[in-house]
Amino acid sequence: QMPRGNLETIHHRALVLAQLRKWLDSLKFKDVFECMRKLRINLNLIYDHNPKVFLENTELFLKQIDSINYINLFLTELKEEDTTKTMYPCPSSTASKPATPGTGGKKVDIVCDALRTTMESLDPQKYCLCILTAHVKKTTPELETALQKVHELRVNPPSEANTVSAEEALKYLLFLVNVNELYEHSLGTYDFDLVLMVAEKSQKDPKEYLPFLNMLKTLEPNYQRYTIDKHLKRYKKALHHLSKCGEEHFTEALNLVKDQRLYSEALELYPADSPQYKVLSVAYAEYLVEHQQAEQAGLLLWRCGETARALQAFVSCTSWRHALAVATQIPLPAEELALLARDLAEKLIELRRHTEAALLLEQYAKDCEEAISALIVGAAWEEALRLVYLYNRQDIIETNVKPALLEAHSTQMSFLESQKALFTRHKNRLAVVREMKEKARLELLDEDGPDCPDAELFSEASSVMTGSHLGSKYSRSNSRISARSSKNRRKAEGKKHSLKEGSPFEDVALLHALTQIIHVVDKMREEVHSLLKALVLFQYDKQACSLQQDYSEILQLIETAIPEIWHEGLQQTQTPVTGPNSTANSIMASFHQQRLSSVSQADSEALSPPKMRSSVKWKLCILK
Amino acid sequence: QMPRGNLETIHHRALVLAQLRKWLDSLKFKDVFECMRKLRINLNLIYDHNPKVFLENTELFLKQIDSINYINLFLTELKEEDTTKTMYPCPSSTASKPATPGTGGKKVDIVCDALRTTMESLDPQKYCLCILTAHVKKTTPELETALQKVHELRVNPPSEANTVSAEEALKYLLFLVNVNELYEHSLGTYDFDLVLMVAEKSQKDPKEYLPFLNMLKTLEPNYQRYTIDKHLKRYKKALHHLSKCGEEHFTEALNLVKDQRLYSEALELYPADSPQYKVLSVAYAEYLVEHQQAEQAGLLLWRCGETARALQAFVSCTSWRHALAVATQIPLPAEELALLARDLAEKLIELRRHTEAALLLEQYAKDCEEAISALIVGAAWEEALRLVYLYNRQDIIETNVKPALLEAHSTQMSFLESQKALFTRHKNRLAVVREMKEKARLELLDEDGPDCPDAELFSEASSVMTGSHLGSKYSRSNSRISARSSKNRRKAEGKKHSLKEGSPFEDVALLHALTQIIHVVDKMREEVHSLLKALVLFQYDKQACSLQQDYSEILQLIETAIPEIWHEGLQQTQTPVTGPNSTANSIMASFHQQRLSSVSQADSEALSPPKMRSSVKWKLCILK
Repeated sequence: QMPRGNLETIHHRALVLAQLRKWLDSLKFKDVFECMRKLRINLNLIYDHNPKVFLENTELFLKQIDSINYINLFLTELKEEDTTKTMYPCPSSTASKPATPGTGGKKVDIVCDALRTTMESLDPQKYCLCILTAHVKKTTPELETALQKVHELRVNPPSEANTVSAEEALKYLLFLVNVNELYEHSLGTYDFDLVLMVAEKSQKDPKEYLPFLNMLKTLEPNYQRYTIDKHLKRYKKALHHLSKCGEEHFTEALNLVKDQRLYSEALELYPADSPQYKVLSVAYAEYLVEHQQAEQAGLLLWRCGETARALQAFVSCTSWRHALAVATQIPLPAEELALLARDLAEKLIELRRHTEAALLLEQYAKDCEEAISALIVGAAWEEALRLVYLYNRQDIIETNVKPALLEAHSTQMSFLESQKALFTRHKNRLAVVREMKEKARLELLDEDGPDCPDAELFSEASSVMTGSHLGSKYSRSNSRISARSSKNRRKAEGKKHSLKEGSPFEDVALLHALTQIIHVVDKMREEVHSLLKALVLFQYDKQACSLQQDYSEILQLIETAIPEIWHEGLQQTQTPVTGPNSTANSIMASFHQQRLSSVSQADSEALSPPKMRSSVKWKLCILK
Repeated sequence: QMPRGNLETIHHRALVLAQLRKWLDSLKFKDVFECMRKLRINLNLIYDHNPKVFLENTELFLKQIDSINYINLFLTELKEEDTTKTMYPCPSSTASKPATPGTGGKKVDIVCDALRTTMESLDPQKYCLCILTAHVKKTTPELETALQKVHELRVNPPSEANTVSAEEALKYLLFLVNVNELYEHSLGTYDFDLVLMVAEKSQKDPKEYLPFLNMLKTLEPNYQRYTIDKHLKRYKKALHHLSKCGEEHFTEALNLVKDQRLYSEALELYPADSPQYKVLSVAYAEYLVEHQQAEQAGLLLWRCGETARALQAFVSCTSWRHALAVATQIPLPAEELALLARDLAEKLIELRRHTEAALLLEQYAKDCEEAISALIVGAAWEEALRLVYLYNRQDIIETNVKPALLEAHSTQMSFLESQKALFTRHKNRLAVVREMKEKARLELLDEDGPDCPDAELFSEASSVMTGSHLGSKYSRSNSRISARSSKNRRKAEGKKHSLKEGSPFEDVALLHALTQIIHVVDKMREEVHSLLKALVLFQYDKQACSLQQDYSEILQLIETAIPEIWHEGLQQTQTPVTGPNSTANSIMASFHQQRLSSVSQADSEALSPPKMRSSVKWKLCILK
């Protein structure tokens, strides 16, 4: 026999954990707890091993442990981490553990609440300190509830012996929580007894806190609470209490609202027909206008009767329907209304919203000529004609409509011409770039292909030099587009690759440019259709024919080109390179290599073929 | 020594072709031609070997051959096929051949025209028959030109000896072309001498053709040509000649136009201000209305002054702007105009074009109440309010606007609820279906994987049983959607896979359904924004808040789900199954197998993630 030594106190952790799991499965919490404590194993495992079983057996747990200190120890050691995954992974059956019950929630909170509820139902006095711990340990500590419980102990001291006194409880709390924090939270209960109790226990100088507390005591209750809330930076609560303090404090409330931007909250605290509501609305509106939300400002002003200000807000954001509604409600004198309409119409024309501008000019400024002119500029031919006949101004057809039609025709023709040329140029260049890249790719595969010792290694190395990365040695900073506003940022993102010949990602840039052209051309269907009809109506059949033919041709060109440009292998990776000499490694290498040439989100959009709205019929069958 | 035999007359084709190519390269056409003729090698090779060189040396070719018969032989043997690609592929340098010069065009036409031009410049009389052959052999034989040349020979017989007579030329033509065809074409020249010449040579009975020719001779020239054109079924030419025959023949012309649907052509033949133009326009319009092109009919009628009919046409297709323009031009009495406006408004409301309906009701029917009501039904809140204030009818706000707002709110809320539920259900089901398929795929690979003798075979076999084809044993006819109109066809196509659990392609069907929901929900941005503003305006802040929150939630839900549903490996094929046991064959098998589960065009659309219009801002910042 070997001599006995210290060996028996050395425990193999795996064996220990196996034993602990067995015990946990048979609900031997006492054995588990003592063993863990002795061997310094993280107590979280008790819960983590099987959360469901633990939560179903909290009472058994508490009764087996049966020690305030041990329970407090367990509670204070709780962490969000799942120890079965980090410190003590179970070797077998990794996936067998059922998911945590309940709707997620945080583990610490779940355990604290479960144990606290059980303790409160078993014996709240016995478990007093544990209950306090459970409150304090939550992810957002419930200090006020804990303080409230201490306060209750003080007001109604428990009659039985062996129970915890308010004194002891407070001491324990101060042991768990920073004293200043506890003091602040005691203030938050608005309970001066509690505050004094905490303050006395703390190391604070009474000269510091007594004057403040005494001042508070002189205040009207709501204003007192407001003052405390403000002191604690609980501004929403502060506003709530201040709003109950009557009109004399309204200016203070308004300042608080402005300082803390509590506009929405403030509006809920005052009746909609009160003068305060109106003042708050105006303040909110001012804030909104400053922050580019004039339309919402207008809504707030209008609904509280501040029509003049509302009008201003609506005009500033060209919310013309609302502006005119308010203007007629005020009501604005006829001349002013007409002026307003002209102003708004001008803005709308700048925004290329000609039909709306025309409505304003026609109905509010009573100027049918200007209205028709706006419609002609906006190529709203049908609506222009409707007004021409409505106001019996057929003379305008000869003087304005017909010349505008012919001009629109020639503009469209030359635009189509330029788009067609650009499209063809980009398409041809893309074919060239692709051929170059494919050649470079195959050359590289030829060099290292079949005998490559490590496919993984190879693919990583190659990605730097081939595929879309070909030529990434050139600087990528030659894109000079500056994203002026957030609105333009997306656009700019699409353009970040340069179209310059030989630039890296030139193929992606070309795809972007082609997509852009396709969208622009496809978008013209409605406009072309309407122009064709107007041309036919005024016997410009020859012009209509040429436009129809040209547009038809470019659409046809694009439709034929789309499957060529966005060929099948573009989104799906291409078939791996195989052949008589290929090996598993060489195939995987070519596969990986293609995957690594994958590109960013914006780029991958360019990789999917743009959709044409072929359901939008624009052709006139009467034109050949 | 071996006895000599027939061996020397046997030629190895490859050797012969090599020799021919050498000769062709050194432009020895004579040698080439005779060799080819003797060994029955297709003469097309002379051109196909190098089209550019041949076209540049036509004169040399003609001079070397120097035989009318040989040239004719060459011309008649011409075929569209490229013999260097089909019959006589060149073993070396397959890609070295330069592309055919010129803008494509058909080979036969190119050669015929090239040779003919050269012959005409060299000696038109000598090559007379060859020139005729070149005309006749073109893809669309130029019979009339050939006939014309024969006719010239007859009128101006060549003075020199040894030249071809008209007689001989005609005989030769009849040898190349069917006699009836030639007779018809001779008629088409309107030249009776020529017709008689051909007719005499033909086997036709003079009793058959003479009366017809004599009758034709009595006619006025244009009418004569019309009669011939009609006889030859050349209706466009017929119409052209008939239009020159004066008013008394207009009815005949109109009937021809109607029979042959030559409306566009006819309109070009008459001045726009003529009565015939108007009659033709009316006829065309009737035809267009019958063929569901009422708007274009309306345009034709309006421009020729047929306002009443134009009005009818515009009304029938709800082209309301044009309808009202015509109506005011007529001008319709006020009451009738109001009635017309109401009719059109009703149609527009059916088409859910409420804003346009409101304009009609307001401006033409002078009924602001109905107009506002239409706007409320169409949820055009801003426009409704504009009219409410314009007509000083604030009472409508309480009676109609507010109840409608609250109803719209609850409708939207429950719609969002239902979409959310459906989306979640489909998404969860998709996860289940995918897991099942992946399991089936891996099981199959496990079975036959590494030792599979023929990857190609394996992949084909497996495609029947796995991947997206899992369960294809079920009938696919359970889709009960019938494509009613071509407009719905695309939609129906997307729905062709059944959502029924366990149906084949259930995953694709689920993707389609999810895409559909996403589009519907994303489309609501504008409507929700406008409703939110209206709710806020009338102090329904609570309702606005709940709507904003619910809509925000479902958008968030979708945005989070999109990358899960359309994960990276969906469009690109997934990574091939690899591992320590994998071989080149097994990898390729898994790769092929994935590719074979690729689906139709409509399905592949479902495979790309739908785009959300996140640039459309709909939230109100004043709502929490």
